[in-house]
Amino acid sequence: MKRKRDRIISGFSKLLKEEKLKLVAEYFENPGEVVSLLKSFWHSDEEKQKLFDEFSENTLTNFVIPYGVAPNVMINGQTYLVPMVIEESSVVAAASAASKFWSERGGFRSEVVDTKKVGQVHFSWSGRAAVLHGLMPELRQHLMSAVKHITANMEKRGGGVLDIELKDFTREIEHYFQLLVTFETKDSMGANFINSVLEEFAQALKVFMANRLELPDEQRQVEIIMSILSNYTPECLVRTWVECPLSQLDNVDETLSGEAFARKFEKAVRIAQVDVYRATTHNKGIYNGIDAVAIATGNDFRAIEAAGHAFASRDGQYRSLSRVEIEDGMFRFILEVPMAVGTVGGLTSLHPLAKYSLDMLGNPSARELMMIASAMGLANNWSAVRSLTTKGIQAGHMKMHLFNILNHFKATDEEKASAAEYFKDQKVSFAGVAQYLTSIRK
Amino acid sequence: MKRKRDRIISGFSKLLKEEKLKLVAEYFENPGEVVSLLKSFWHSDEEKQKLFDEFSENTLTNFVIPYGVAPNVMINGQTYLVPMVIEESSVVAAASAASKFWSERGGFRSEVVDTKKVGQVHFSWSGRAAVLHGLMPELRQHLMSAVKHITANMEKRGGGVLDIELKDFTREIEHYFQLLVTFETKDSMGANFINSVLEEFAQALKVFMANRLELPDEQRQVEIIMSILSNYTPECLVRTWVECPLSQLDNVDETLSGEAFARKFEKAVRIAQVDVYRATTHNKGIYNGIDAVAIATGNDFRAIEAAGHAFASRDGQYRSLSRVEIEDGMFRFILEVPMAVGTVGGLTSLHPLAKYSLDMLGNPSARELMMIASAMGLANNWSAVRSLTTKGIQAGHMKMHLFNILNHFKATDEEKASAAEYFKDQKVSFAGVAQYLTSIRK
Repeated sequence: MKRKRDRIISGFSKLLKEEKLKLVAEYFENPGEVVSLLKSFWHSDEEKQKLFDEFSENTLTNFVIPYGVAPNVMINGQTYLVPMVIEESSVVAAASAASKFWSERGGFRSEVVDTKKVGQVHFSWSGRAAVLHGLMPELRQHLMSAVKHITANMEKRGGGVLDIELKDFTREIEHYFQLLVTFETKDSMGANFINSVLEEFAQALKVFMANRLELPDEQRQVEIIMSILSNYTPECLVRTWVECPLSQLDNVDETLSGEAFARKFEKAVRIAQVDVYRATTHNKGIYNGIDAVAIATGNDFRAIEAAGHAFASRDGQYRSLSRVEIEDGMFRFILEVPMAVGTVGGLTSLHPLAKYSLDMLGNPSARELMMIASAMGLANNWSAVRSLTTKGIQAGHMKMHLFNILNHFKATDEEKASAAEYFKDQKVSFAGVAQYLTSIRK
Repeated sequence: MKRKRDRIISGFSKLLKEEKLKLVAEYFENPGEVVSLLKSFWHSDEEKQKLFDEFSENTLTNFVIPYGVAPNVMINGQTYLVPMVIEESSVVAAASAASKFWSERGGFRSEVVDTKKVGQVHFSWSGRAAVLHGLMPELRQHLMSAVKHITANMEKRGGGVLDIELKDFTREIEHYFQLLVTFETKDSMGANFINSVLEEFAQALKVFMANRLELPDEQRQVEIIMSILSNYTPECLVRTWVECPLSQLDNVDETLSGEAFARKFEKAVRIAQVDVYRATTHNKGIYNGIDAVAIATGNDFRAIEAAGHAFASRDGQYRSLSRVEIEDGMFRFILEVPMAVGTVGGLTSLHPLAKYSLDMLGNPSARELMMIASAMGLANNWSAVRSLTTKGIQAGHMKMHLFNILNHFKATDEEKASAAEYFKDQKVSFAGVAQYLTSIRK
């Protein structure tokens, strides 16, 4: 490969897109082909393409990820078609199969526990905590009036700043305190709103303390370390579950009664509660479903993942986010997960496909979207643990992956059809498919 | 909205793509427009489109996410152009700025600590742990020979099964044991390989125990609960850092000396070590960079996120993945993160843009990709904490978000240019941009 890798490029971000494309293409042996490849992914509508380019920086083209739907998702009695964006085979299939299965058993139930969001002003101050605590009532008022120009609109929509709490961390780090602020941001994810309020709070805190003439000089000074929202939102929480009598699980596995299957399923979930190696993968499967909905609706999946996994370790050990209850002849499978999502603001209305996804869901509130995304998390968790505890994961997964393997070997449509037929009752493996293709190509 | 939401759809997955599209469009008031919108995102090359459709299930179209590049990424003396796929504004800009800054100070240093991956066979067995431990040497041999047909190819590439350990969890769950298996999968992520080996191990374990004629009947039976890889890979770990003399940080902030800035930066990182609210957001920023590279190269970001966040809670509290050391006049900023990625197999060569990304990176090994992705994680972490501890995050972030806000109000090119000029020295806010546009539109 011809690569002029060791050259430092100056002012790349200021180049026009065509110039960037050209410069990048020069790193390849076949610059012409590279440019055509990249351009082939541009949207044919120039305005739309420009929009995508402006979401981020130094953009050359669009990356594409399959956009699919899971039908028959019944939640609290209402049925949805759920948009899912995911590159991994078998996630949409798993969500669809689980949704169909549970739609015949009452569907998903879901309730939003709370929707509080959090932000922090981190600062250093050299006085005693008790003094600051004493000032809090007055400081609270001062801070709230300092942000009226930012909060007015949010308050009209029923949101705003809920509380400001002083946290003393001086035992961990010398002089370190924080204002822990809780917010309600209604249908917006609220990141920009929260950060703007916090930065204003930080300024107002400095002014407030500077004016405490009763304090010694050095205590009238506050060093602001930083002000920013927290993605840890244990109180922006949704609980979603499925339940049915044990007898309605009788046909899940041909070798197990409904009760025996439920007990085995329960054991698999308990393992994810006691062992971090299993918990990580168990929760990863939950996020396969949640992230796919987050991406499809223009939400930030990194924020959702970080909150959920931190929440999974809240009692000192990283554990499963879902749990099973079996009592009085009922099986219940419950997922409790924090999730800060928005259905207005951010990319939700800017990205035409995110907007379309929300439309497909009936333009839900943020609370409703929490229920939908968590249901797809629970659906994937159900399907994964069900497969694992019965026929094993590879049978289903490799069947879904079969077409990827066939494409790897550039199989024709005819070859694909005959392979699909052949592998109906055969174990799919990379080597097995290679062998099969060689045999029919002879 | 016209919605026939409460209808259960049967056999959706078996419909042709055009039929699915038609059926979904019927849920909308304007089915014709919906079909055109979805089709407008199809790739013009039918074969490529088919490939994307076959990655997943029930696919209607492609979701697009901006594909950008961070230039000037120097790692261990070599300079890369790094492909990043991300919808969030300012992530690519932050990665680029940090890379440029550190390229003038020796660049990123990185070393792969280890690349071991993990899988588990979970099973119930009613005997005493000591008996099983006694059988392990013989069982190990039996298991290894049972999977020779699967491992032969991987062994040729230098990988395979490294170890099989018996774990006794009977104190947590009655009769519950596991085989904890470690693997080396070289440049592939290895999920299918690991799962195939484990499922074979499970069968072989049953056969082995059934033949222990010296044991009582009930102990010759093993109940396999499940067999699957673990995404928790604390030993598939990369360490990446930047370092420079404190004096080389003198100009980072106009009001702070290099040393004062370094101390403030250090304090901000320590806060993320002691407080879970801050740690979550701190690590979220790291994954902004890592995930963008993972997606661009066809890797599974859910697996990477789950491993990293679980790792962040390994000592009983969820903490920052990065840390600062200041000693002997040197500033050092270090990220240690588990990361199981592949540069062969999966979608890496199937997705034309993933293949192109790997080509842009010089077709790296999995180890090299661990270094590159973690460097982009550290770069984003650096930029975020630097902004937070100096001018605040909103200034830069909202500047990057300005074009999204302008697009929201359907600003013309002229309006955008004049807004960009106006907001050069003005605080960007949603309300502020709205006001500005109203004023110039009068």
